[in-house]
Amino acid sequence: MKFKVFSELSYEVYMPSTFIFNIEGAKTVNQTILEEALTIEPQFKLEAFNSQNGTRFLRLEVDNPINFKINYTAIVETNYIIINERPLRGEAIISKLDAEVIPYLFPSRYCQSDKLQRLATKEFGGIMDDYAKVVAIADWIFNNVEYLSGSTNSSTSALDTISERAGVCRDFAHLGIALCRALSIPARYFTGYAFKLNPPDFHACFEAYIGGKWLFFDATRLIPINGLVKIANGRDAADAAVASIFGSTFCNYINVGCQAIDDDFKPYNYWDNKEGGLCYG
Amino acid sequence: MKFKVFSELSYEVYMPSTFIFNIEGAKTVNQTILEEALTIEPQFKLEAFNSQNGTRFLRLEVDNPINFKINYTAIVETNYIIINERPLRGEAIISKLDAEVIPYLFPSRYCQSDKLQRLATKEFGGIMDDYAKVVAIADWIFNNVEYLSGSTNSSTSALDTISERAGVCRDFAHLGIALCRALSIPARYFTGYAFKLNPPDFHACFEAYIGGKWLFFDATRLIPINGLVKIANGRDAADAAVASIFGSTFCNYINVGCQAIDDDFKPYNYWDNKEGGLCYG
Amino acid sequence: MKFKVFSELSYEVYMPSTFIFNIEGAKTVNQTILEEALTIEPQFKLEAFNSQNGTRFLRLEVDNPINFKINYTAIVETNYIIINERPLRGEAIISKLDAEVIPYLFPSRYCQSDKLQRLATKEFGGIMDDYAKVVAIADWIFNNVEYLSGSTNSSTSALDTISERAGVCRDFAHLGIALCRALSIPARYFTGYAFKLNPPDFHACFEAYIGGKWLFFDATRLIPINGLVKIANGRDAADAAVASIFGSTFCNYINVGCQAIDDDFKPYNYWDNKEGGLCYG
Amino acid sequence: MKFKVFSELSYEVYMPSTFIFNIEGAKTVNQTILEEALTIEPQFKLEAFNSQNGTRFLRLEVDNPINFKINYTAIVETNYIIINERPLRGEAIISKLDAEVIPYLFPSRYCQSDKLQRLATKEFGGIMDDYAKVVAIADWIFNNVEYLSGSTNSSTSALDTISERAGVCRDFAHLGIALCRALSIPARYFTGYAFKLNPPDFHACFEAYIGGKWLFFDATRLIPINGLVKIANGRDAADAAVASIFGSTFCNYINVGCQAIDDDFKPYNYWDNKEGGLCYG
Repeated sequence: MKFKVFSELSYEVYMPSTFIFNIEGAKTVNQTILEEALTIEPQFKLEAFNSQNGTRFLRLEVDNPINFKINYTAIVETNYIIINERPLRGEAIISKLDAEVIPYLFPSRYCQSDKLQRLATKEFGGIMDDYAKVVAIADWIFNNVEYLSGSTNSSTSALDTISERAGVCRDFAHLGIALCRALSIPARYFTGYAFKLNPPDFHACFEAYIGGKWLFFDATRLIPINGLVKIANGRDAADAAVASIFGSTFCNYINVGCQAIDDDFKPYNYWDNKEGGLCYG
Repeated sequence: MKFKVFSELSYEVYMPSTFIFNIEGAKTVNQTILEEALTIEPQFKLEAFNSQNGTRFLRLEVDNPINFKINYTAIVETNYIIINERPLRGEAIISKLDAEVIPYLFPSRYCQSDKLQRLATKEFGGIMDDYAKVVAIADWIFNNVEYLSGSTNSSTSALDTISERAGVCRDFAHLGIALCRALSIPARYFTGYAFKLNPPDFHACFEAYIGGKWLFFDATRLIPINGLVKIANGRDAADAAVASIFGSTFCNYINVGCQAIDDDFKPYNYWDNKEGGLCYG
Repeated sequence: MKFKVFSELSYEVYMPSTFIFNIEGAKTVNQTILEEALTIEPQFKLEAFNSQNGTRFLRLEVDNPINFKINYTAIVETNYIIINERPLRGEAIISKLDAEVIPYLFPSRYCQSDKLQRLATKEFGGIMDDYAKVVAIADWIFNNVEYLSGSTNSSTSALDTISERAGVCRDFAHLGIALCRALSIPARYFTGYAFKLNPPDFHACFEAYIGGKWLFFDATRLIPINGLVKIANGRDAADAAVASIFGSTFCNYINVGCQAIDDDFKPYNYWDNKEGGLCYG
Repeated sequence: MKFKVFSELSYEVYMPSTFIFNIEGAKTVNQTILEEALTIEPQFKLEAFNSQNGTRFLRLEVDNPINFKINYTAIVETNYIIINERPLRGEAIISKLDAEVIPYLFPSRYCQSDKLQRLATKEFGGIMDDYAKVVAIADWIFNNVEYLSGSTNSSTSALDTISERAGVCRDFAHLGIALCRALSIPARYFTGYAFKLNPPDFHACFEAYIGGKWLFFDATRLIPINGLVKIANGRDAADAAVASIFGSTFCNYINVGCQAIDDDFKPYNYWDNKEGGLCYG
């Protein structure tokens, strides 16, 4: 699939500040950036660096009080795999996990899986295979947590959401991750551009490591899950925020979009196809 | 029913300290203290005072580092009512509540009902009458929270228990209260001596205000609910702790007991008799 | 002192709902309501009831989806006492407290004093007399917590504020109360109309029980502390909210005011007069 | 310096479980393992893997209920540097940080730096250079938090410690890390064997990234800071627990030791030498 994505963010900066942005499409085996352009007005020196998993960070230092705008556009080709097979039938074998997957078993800032083990085991522990467990987790969140714009803030965590039962995509993702890890299933945060998201915005979802692959889940069910362009992965939003800001600034404008370039986009949702999981690789 | 109850507590006191004890049987319309004795070794001046709802407090000031023991025994006659009738069929009408019941609608230290409204409404909101709602709450707690000695401490609250899913009688009571209040049903904490509690200890349960009466619930199901001698009511354990201590002390011994004096004690449990609620008055 | 106060609140009601309002001036020994008027449009039956400490509640039941407005105006005469004397020099003697003051020693929903004992003892424990301790608490809050409109919400508690260090008048009051109780000084929440508060709004402060009297403190220092008309006291905002609402509604308008009628208002602030505490009785 | 270190841990395993241990001395440029031996009784297959920063993990799968013991001994040579120089005089320049240091700026499970920014800025923001800031943080923790065995548990975080003001080495380290990150100074968790720690145990401290180096801090002041053998670094204890256990087990024995082999160990403490920071490399 090919998508055209863009984001525009505008900031007022009150004192010398550093920004770390995650807005560029990730470069992975399954996702290719065909074209892209990044502009800043006024011009600043940007520094780019990558994490191991393909996430691309932009670092920008602003020395003086100023207003600036950052603008990203890209055409991205994504390939996903639908996995119908046996591997999804098993259970996580921690002793077989690659070393780099291990950290995704541990609790993190917004995903206090250590506190949710009894709840997760009670609700989902009896389900036999890992893929079915994570589908059940995502279904449970969809059915029990209300999607409510403005109900949470940047310090809201999975532990808040499990009791307060309202949140936005970020909170749905954090709770999904926390419940997976509470069952010893590695899980990570996923941010991206999302086709058909209404109103348009950055989107947050999660991936669970099942049968040696990162399977994709979206407990909000707001979009077809095959319409995403990955920006970043991380343990949770602390690692993969759209903008991590060190200083004093105010974001006064944000505009995000994602369009399918091909005509033949066929929505795919795991909740209609319980046998087949989707993997962005 | 007649019960013989006793409690012995022993403290090491390291600096001038004040104790407020709730260990005496409450004097209410439905509970009569037939005999009682209170001793302290060495002797201290005790001051007694009562709250409006019949709870009896003992205040004791210790000026010097010392070890002391407090000992209470009583024979208490309790009368409870089984309510099978129509009043239980309705829903709480806040506009009809007496003024003194209103505070039991509000959140308190260990019962953050304000944060559990969505969860409570989702799980129990569809149940028609209030008594059935509270039975469902107590059943849900019994089925979803593990009774686990030592798993919690004096700062554990309903908000912790709803996510961590383990606790002791106090935590079961707090969660019951919080879920009731989240549905606009007044609820209060109840402490007492409990017949057949094993191991013997002070017990904590809760009462919900339904059809103009305080109905009794015990989500732990550890005891027959008609075997209690009430010590205190309060909004939660902050109001009705066995001992509130201001100073520096250590409790090095505690021994509690409750025996039925009559031979004909017939256990009653609302969970076996869903039509009939029990009220201590 | 005489003040003219008013408040107007307007609500959209979506389903049958019950409101409990605290907007009327309290009737106490030291505060007299000279005139008052309460109107509701459209007309509803209101029920009034009082708590023991003079707080006046209004209960209003709305059966149908509707918009309504409640309007209160009053002329109130207040008398306060400035206490310069010896009683303020001592320390709280719990064994001498009246029974009705005891509950104000215990932790409550927004004032988790049980968790702040070490902090309070470290910061303020070495100060000799209770009045000086509470002045130090209010000064510390003023100096260490940022007054920031919109930084908190209705579930923010003293435990949040002690770490996050920002809040509004309600949060300043809760933290003051929690720190007092952590030192075994009874403390309670105070809401009222406040002269010279800018922008005009309901105001929240706290009172500490020292030398047998409730002394008044305002850690925000936003107003002269002798310009208040008391509405309610309570353990914290859970007891004394302007509006406790059971149902589904939205407040779409609020307007509050307080003017001195006498010409000779002389602002008094304990922080300029460390020897003299103010008591509304 | 040369140290002989050992640890013995014994577990009861109730169901198939996986263990990830961090008990081996790290292999870094500045730390050499001269000898080491690892034994398990009964014998199990262990799998070893390393993180990028030299931390060595041991993964062990236990299929059946069993009791087992793991035993590690090593002779380790450590080299540390004392840094007296100019680099410590500057402030963190986020725009110059290496990509792999960036994650240590972000909040993590036990270090909610996002919630402590106002507090950290108020207390330490006015101090000019980063090294002096972190020394002030460690001093503040030493002076304001009580070291109290058994006061906390595995879910205690920096946010708890900032209000409750008691904890063990792990809590002191988490609070140090959180306060550094709140000031945009990268900080990480450090676990190791500690010479002269009494009673002997694993020890937890923290490192802050200053002038391009990881400087070592121990807010507990329980040991000379040049007597450590590093086991692991991580964002916090979630990454670097002595044992992360997936399953149902009970640790019934733990014994840890660290002895200096050289006779000439001269204790070094940054709090006596405020000009010189210590770096383990």
